[in-house]
Amino acid sequence: MTSISIIGTGKMGSAIAEVAARAGANIQIIRRRAGAGSAPERADAEYGVAGDELTGDLVVLAVPYEAYPNILEHYRDRLSGKIVIDISNPIDFTTYDELLVPADSSTAVELSKALPAGVTVVKAFNVNLGDTLSTGTNGTTPTTVLFAGDDPEAKIAVAALIEASGLRAVDTGPLSRARELEAMGFLQIVLAAIGKTHYESGFTLLP
Amino acid sequence: MTSISIIGTGKMGSAIAEVAARAGANIQIIRRRAGAGSAPERADAEYGVAGDELTGDLVVLAVPYEAYPNILEHYRDRLSGKIVIDISNPIDFTTYDELLVPADSSTAVELSKALPAGVTVVKAFNVNLGDTLSTGTNGTTPTTVLFAGDDPEAKIAVAALIEASGLRAVDTGPLSRARELEAMGFLQIVLAAIGKTHYESGFTLLP
Repeated sequence: MTSISIIGTGKMGSAIAEVAARAGANIQIIRRRAGAGSAPERADAEYGVAGDELTGDLVVLAVPYEAYPNILEHYRDRLSGKIVIDISNPIDFTTYDELLVPADSSTAVELSKALPAGVTVVKAFNVNLGDTLSTGTNGTTPTTVLFAGDDPEAKIAVAALIEASGLRAVDTGPLSRARELEAMGFLQIVLAAIGKTHYESGFTLLP
Repeated sequence: MTSISIIGTGKMGSAIAEVAARAGANIQIIRRRAGAGSAPERADAEYGVAGDELTGDLVVLAVPYEAYPNILEHYRDRLSGKIVIDISNPIDFTTYDELLVPADSSTAVELSKALPAGVTVVKAFNVNLGDTLSTGTNGTTPTTVLFAGDDPEAKIAVAALIEASGLRAVDTGPLSRARELEAMGFLQIVLAAIGKTHYESGFTLLP
């Protein structure tokens, strides 16, 4: 059975926990400290705090990009053999006008460079507004999750989780494609912020 | 009444001619030479060849990005007061793996730099697969046209054309946002090429 550790208890962390629950995965949720986080506790998840052993084969970093260094401090050398899922949109929220990564790169590629060899990064979920993951639909179609990565087996594992949850998984290519996924995630959040789309919908990919 | 000159007779040029016709605009279509182009001639358009005077207030460059230098040779100094619409997706079609502009820029910004002061560039239509413009719908919703630019009046003129044609116009911000629009256009074309979406559909923005 798939097992997943979700680091972070915000909106996206909670939405991905719901995705994992629908897929029947074993779920571990890592909080900053016991009892922290605004989301109600799930009966179907185990809880831990930052620094605890990660039990999931998949590890989701559901924290803002700025918090990655802190997460890496705890876990950088304890991720061997795991698949790390980067969901971040590194928007400068003071201006809503640029991204916090080099223009020719992405958080996913930067994260991959910061991790030891043997830890695989897959970019996924960053073009999904949280509610479309919780409900499983976006408009009239199942929610599509775009993802990218360099390791075929890791991509199969991530796609399997997504599909088992009733969502549509679409492989967009190598990890370098995270640059375009992050550009699209940026656009979507900007458009939601100015009311051109809703946080319950956003972009969808028609079949 | 809006007037538009469309340089190029390919799929996108033809689709934008259809958009302009639905909006009741005066249409000029510029071909490489008389009789050139695979599209049937429109009864509601005037035709010219590259080098002819442009009659439209809006000028659409509906040619591949690689052909821009040739267009600029003809028209660079004859665009004063006009609004130039850049629709290009500068994909390297030999690899389908990267864009032909600097990572921190866009064709729209590069074009703007290559034009004299006083010529306004608006990025638009590059995230629309042609058929969604011709038909006016994408899935269950009117086709959304994302655009970006720095000149408010130019953006109003472009949005007016789009809306008069029954489509939805969505302002995504300054011309620098063309970088993200081109990243999204790139993703969409890659996904259509590998069959993850159809050339009749692609991405849509839900309200």
